[in-house]
Amino acid sequence: MNMKKFSTYISLFMATLIISSLLVFTGCGGKKKSAVEEIGAPRGDESFGQVIKRRGLTSDDILAAAKTYTPDHVQDEYVTVNSGGQEGNLPTYLVPSMRLVKYTPTNTRNPYDGYGYSTETYGLMRQGFIDGHQILWGDTHHPGISETNGDYNGKWLVINDKANPRLFVVDLKDFEPKQVIKNPLFRSDHGGCFFTPNSEYIMEASQYPAPFDHKYYPLNDVNFRKYWRGGLTYWKFDNENGRIDKKNSFTFEFPPYTQDLSDAGKNASYGWGFTNSFCTEMYIGGDMQGRPPFEAGCSSRDVDYLHVTNWKKAAELVKQGKYKLINGMKVIPIKEAIKYGILFLIPEPKSPHGVDVDPTGDYILVAGKLDSHVWVYSFKKIMNAIKNKDFEGYDSYGIPIIALKTALHGSVEVGLGPLHNQFDPVKGVVYTSVYVDSWTTKWDYINLKVLDHVSSNYNIGHLVSTHGDTKHPQGKYLIELDKLSIDRFNPVGPLHPQNHQLIDISGDKMKIIYDMPLPMGEPHYTVMFNKDLLHTIDKYPVGTDIVSLKKASYAVTPGNEHTNRSKRTVEVFGTIQNGKVVPENIRVKQGQKVIIHLTNVGQTELDHYVYEIASYDKQYRWRPGETATLQFVATKAGMYPLMLDDISSPEGRKLQGYLQVSYRPAAEKARLLAFSKRIQKDNEMQKFQPSAIELKNLLPGELEFLNYGCTACHKFGKDFNGPDLLMVDKRRSDKWLKSWIMNPEKHMKEADIQAMRNKYKLAMPNQNVSSSDADKIIKYLKAKSTEFLKQQQ
Amino acid sequence: MNMKKFSTYISLFMATLIISSLLVFTGCGGKKKSAVEEIGAPRGDESFGQVIKRRGLTSDDILAAAKTYTPDHVQDEYVTVNSGGQEGNLPTYLVPSMRLVKYTPTNTRNPYDGYGYSTETYGLMRQGFIDGHQILWGDTHHPGISETNGDYNGKWLVINDKANPRLFVVDLKDFEPKQVIKNPLFRSDHGGCFFTPNSEYIMEASQYPAPFDHKYYPLNDVNFRKYWRGGLTYWKFDNENGRIDKKNSFTFEFPPYTQDLSDAGKNASYGWGFTNSFCTEMYIGGDMQGRPPFEAGCSSRDVDYLHVTNWKKAAELVKQGKYKLINGMKVIPIKEAIKYGILFLIPEPKSPHGVDVDPTGDYILVAGKLDSHVWVYSFKKIMNAIKNKDFEGYDSYGIPIIALKTALHGSVEVGLGPLHNQFDPVKGVVYTSVYVDSWTTKWDYINLKVLDHVSSNYNIGHLVSTHGDTKHPQGKYLIELDKLSIDRFNPVGPLHPQNHQLIDISGDKMKIIYDMPLPMGEPHYTVMFNKDLLHTIDKYPVGTDIVSLKKASYAVTPGNEHTNRSKRTVEVFGTIQNGKVVPENIRVKQGQKVIIHLTNVGQTELDHYVYEIASYDKQYRWRPGETATLQFVATKAGMYPLMLDDISSPEGRKLQGYLQVSYRPAAEKARLLAFSKRIQKDNEMQKFQPSAIELKNLLPGELEFLNYGCTACHKFGKDFNGPDLLMVDKRRSDKWLKSWIMNPEKHMKEADIQAMRNKYKLAMPNQNVSSSDADKIIKYLKAKSTEFLKQQQ
Repeated sequence: MNMKKFSTYISLFMATLIISSLLVFTGCGGKKKSAVEEIGAPRGDESFGQVIKRRGLTSDDILAAAKTYTPDHVQDEYVTVNSGGQEGNLPTYLVPSMRLVKYTPTNTRNPYDGYGYSTETYGLMRQGFIDGHQILWGDTHHPGISETNGDYNGKWLVINDKANPRLFVVDLKDFEPKQVIKNPLFRSDHGGCFFTPNSEYIMEASQYPAPFDHKYYPLNDVNFRKYWRGGLTYWKFDNENGRIDKKNSFTFEFPPYTQDLSDAGKNASYGWGFTNSFCTEMYIGGDMQGRPPFEAGCSSRDVDYLHVTNWKKAAELVKQGKYKLINGMKVIPIKEAIKYGILFLIPEPKSPHGVDVDPTGDYILVAGKLDSHVWVYSFKKIMNAIKNKDFEGYDSYGIPIIALKTALHGSVEVGLGPLHNQFDPVKGVVYTSVYVDSWTTKWDYINLKVLDHVSSNYNIGHLVSTHGDTKHPQGKYLIELDKLSIDRFNPVGPLHPQNHQLIDISGDKMKIIYDMPLPMGEPHYTVMFNKDLLHTIDKYPVGTDIVSLKKASYAVTPGNEHTNRSKRTVEVFGTIQNGKVVPENIRVKQGQKVIIHLTNVGQTELDHYVYEIASYDKQYRWRPGETATLQFVATKAGMYPLMLDDISSPEGRKLQGYLQVSYRPAAEKARLLAFSKRIQKDNEMQKFQPSAIELKNLLPGELEFLNYGCTACHKFGKDFNGPDLLMVDKRRSDKWLKSWIMNPEKHMKEADIQAMRNKYKLAMPNQNVSSSDADKIIKYLKAKSTEFLKQQQ
Repeated sequence: MNMKKFSTYISLFMATLIISSLLVFTGCGGKKKSAVEEIGAPRGDESFGQVIKRRGLTSDDILAAAKTYTPDHVQDEYVTVNSGGQEGNLPTYLVPSMRLVKYTPTNTRNPYDGYGYSTETYGLMRQGFIDGHQILWGDTHHPGISETNGDYNGKWLVINDKANPRLFVVDLKDFEPKQVIKNPLFRSDHGGCFFTPNSEYIMEASQYPAPFDHKYYPLNDVNFRKYWRGGLTYWKFDNENGRIDKKNSFTFEFPPYTQDLSDAGKNASYGWGFTNSFCTEMYIGGDMQGRPPFEAGCSSRDVDYLHVTNWKKAAELVKQGKYKLINGMKVIPIKEAIKYGILFLIPEPKSPHGVDVDPTGDYILVAGKLDSHVWVYSFKKIMNAIKNKDFEGYDSYGIPIIALKTALHGSVEVGLGPLHNQFDPVKGVVYTSVYVDSWTTKWDYINLKVLDHVSSNYNIGHLVSTHGDTKHPQGKYLIELDKLSIDRFNPVGPLHPQNHQLIDISGDKMKIIYDMPLPMGEPHYTVMFNKDLLHTIDKYPVGTDIVSLKKASYAVTPGNEHTNRSKRTVEVFGTIQNGKVVPENIRVKQGQKVIIHLTNVGQTELDHYVYEIASYDKQYRWRPGETATLQFVATKAGMYPLMLDDISSPEGRKLQGYLQVSYRPAAEKARLLAFSKRIQKDNEMQKFQPSAIELKNLLPGELEFLNYGCTACHKFGKDFNGPDLLMVDKRRSDKWLKSWIMNPEKHMKEADIQAMRNKYKLAMPNQNVSSSDADKIIKYLKAKSTEFLKQQQ
């Protein structure tokens, strides 16, 4: 705004102020009231003073309102991404206005966004299915933002699911998830996701220990110590392309303590990581035997252990092959870690929660959940102890323990139940959330003194400051994440929202300036970053599959819409343009599989369309330029409206035509249904689930062959719905086979493929086979040949 | 607040004002700047004036901030419930602070709330499955609040799913859904839910016509006119108990026009209803034949028809049996409606959207989406025309048409693309949303003149004022529901939030005072009611099933926890108390069905717990006092952490124990798995889906027998997993059978039942059979006996 305009505003504003001040002042001075005041001005014509009086606002309130109210000509300064807890998504709101602008889905199908409803996004969710079983729900926990030089780069966000140990990578260009990775060893996690300073790795620790091999062992003390394990995975991350690289990731084997949060070192402590733990008692409960319950028995010792790991050295060891492969994960056994000096323990306050490395990297702070202190460790002292082998002993797994007094810089009493720490730009200043006392303590961790407290509305969990866990905290704002709100907002039944309280931390005293309800699961963590880091897109090139961000092979341009029909399948290649779907009607026979690929050729910000099929439970939202697929089996005959929700015209939802499902003769229908259901079943991930015993009898790659539904069309030794696969490895090169399995559409014009399509009246579908799975399937094809040749001998 | 306290606040406030005014004033006067101003005060110590200057706020902004900022000692005045569109839920926010406090799930599983994850809430969703197929997604559209004497009573909220024609009833005591009703005739709806003045009925019109019998007919003009139908259902509502009464509901058969929104008459027009329509051209598209697409062909005529229905007379006719039963719904055929003078048509502006009866009931306003006018009809004139049989003709189905000039009071040009109307307390004043011109017009529908306009941020759809469609609008606030936000909030990728803009309507000029982003599907409608109407609860009596609000038969008290084991099933009756689940461990064998009933005995507002089973995709949130059930088949062997999220302790999520699934001998496991999967399959609603031909061959009630999975345990003529059912109707009374089918747990202590449980090692499960379905099943049992006896002859 230029100064001239500003002066005009201010003059207007001052006029209002003076009039309203006078009105308020005479009103409160006890003098005779004016007529306007007696009856009150019509509410719409109220002055500033009258509004304040009517609503009972204080000068603090008005100052807070001025700090947070964000009209259309003012931009918000910070963007947050939050864990949505059991809702399985990531709410994003703006600071200081505290307004929600986006939910990014991860664990859970999200009908508004369409996530999990298209074949493409469901395919992404499938990457996170565990033990071959559909997992459509999760508990998003701890978001982390990718870093460059120890500060956020605003490119990628990773969050963990603490109910099922999985990580989700979100691209901050479009705020959509792109990758799902499951931890093949753990059964639960909690302490993720923490980036190292240049996003070399993401730290994910297991929480409750479980057997790494996922087998059943009777639960007793002997088995627990022998088979149960904790661990810490360092996931290799590609900071440029935003993908986790499973092959170059590795896991530290830990004792079966309950590991918790982690943080990566910076500056002097670069290359190191810190992970705390509780239940180092290794208590296994036993209410059946009259012993105390699980967690109660986990607090009998006065301290637990901070785990100190060296990821730089560990990566070198892994390169040298010093690991054990378990479930495809490279695991550094405890013994090796001890031998090479990359794993140490330090006593820490009982049942700790947050462990946080300060911006300098010189101090590590651990908040003792069941203690009233935060303990501050000196990295220099830790290094000295390691150098001098100054250990007080070893735990029962042989890990060296550095004595507390050797490593500690000092401790400060911040209140009952300290949980997490976030840093200020002023050196030595930190903010700690304190659960039982329900407040935030501002204190100095170098000079070890408390500076200020501010109360929270109700039971604070996490807290977050701007860039508060990086090398360069930006100050200004802090948010308290209160676990629920009591007596704060108008009540709406038993479920209370959380309360995110915005605090102005730019002065010496902390000041709450906004209460924001968030009606979601238990609040976890939030990251808050400067808005200037974001460079979002608002559309995709026409034909984009938004999961891979590549052009979909089944995208078509207007005028080239067509439908491929076979006995069993109707495959539509259509477009959406200006609120109109081509083709308008879809005619199929009962029992046929219907695959609808639509390309949204619109390229404006208004070109968002939702295509809905009544009574068939099918819908998806197409973004500008997106190509996506819906598929289902037309089990029910009848006429079903096909509708398009179109925000760019006054008509809104428009009828496109009807899905017309005609009857089939019973016998033919039964055959078709049986066939389609088999494919559908696979699509919907009712995968073949072998028992441990069955698994042993499978050939390598056979499981993948089964799981991608290859058996629906192929047999060995005879033709079926597709060609006989016996000896196929002798007829085709590995390279060709892999390309064919992964991208069959690329080969559709090859003469022999065309001949086969004519013969079998079916096209090989793209099953979104991953590169490694394609390799496994080829391995299986070869094994079948070998097996056959052996039998011939 | 008392006056003394208020004076203190005001004094403080005045001091701030004076200081800040001075600072601002000297700053803008161009005089020499002070040192503080030159560098700026530390941000945290800024004065009011400095904050305003830094953020560039105008006096209008500050006034709006004062009107909306709601600190902890101020309550919000109004509560809204919104349709969440494709998200399938109901967001609730408060006015004027525009803060979200609740999402009520309806169509879609909601992991945070737990809706659709417990057996009880999934059972509720099942009521809305269509043609025996799982429907787990919907498009919530038009919320309506129950009324008494033509004003909201704040007790019940009903919303329709416009993708699949279903209604959801929400109890505003706990903001949770209690009933789901599907329309057995329609394939889509749009114009719902509209209450009559004492909630006698809820109006739901079909949108796109489809055959009432749900059969397939080739789409052509002849078939369309013959088999396709529109309709208007008047759902009978129990205002006391908040349930729709299907038996006493009825539907008007309408021609296959595309019906749209409705409204019920009040005062003079009480007993009448008004429903508009478009595509009275009955155009059926035909892009395959080179004709224009569907909706384009639907705008060739200059007018469409307002349908006028008399529900009071219709209800009497239905009582007299003057209806046809189709799919269990009482339908008043067009011919009968004409004969008894309860259905009329009046021309209305082309492709209209909202039809709204004014607070007096004397005027009916229709906004002409593709016209620039709102047309105002006089109810008196309509009645005169009907009385005098003053018709201009009949449509092709024989319905009398009242001429426009006969019925019209007048029309006003409000802008391009008028959509919806909401009323003001001042007589004759109405607000209309205007889509293409992107504004709201305030105008006088009695004296037919425009009073004011206010622009919206982007493409307004619906709008809502306080109690704005009742007899007693309360004024003060209006909200514009903008379909999306362009250039308004910091961008977060291709998906833009909607923008709900709060407008102060208490003065002569409308004034936007807040922009609220809502990151959801296409915005539909919102109801806004006075906070004093709400009387919410914050807990349930211990043992409550929150769907039925009755005590669950499987609730247990602390100390009485137990586990029933049979070969095939492990049924746990447990408790949650103070963050601890009893029993802590659950031991089962692979292949067993696991049923876990937990009763949350906590009774404070903090007693909310989420029980999670890792890797098994199972979780649920227990409210204070709630009893709920999780069930699944233990297909996978291994050790799975059982965790409880507990917001009332600093530990948060706590390990309770392990789900311990031990291996079974292969043969036994296979048998168990097959059995359990059959039950699971039924539970998860992969229901038996007969074709039309198969349906004909079924005995009455056989479909229900199949769909409730009775075949999993029962055969006719021999014992199976449960007793032989042949002739069971001769052994037991109808009354006993019905009670047994609906509430087996009531009979478990009867001696012969105990004997059977011992024999079969299985208990009859409660399958949540409805009363009418139980009757059908008994009918089937009898039919089987009759069939058998015949064969014996």
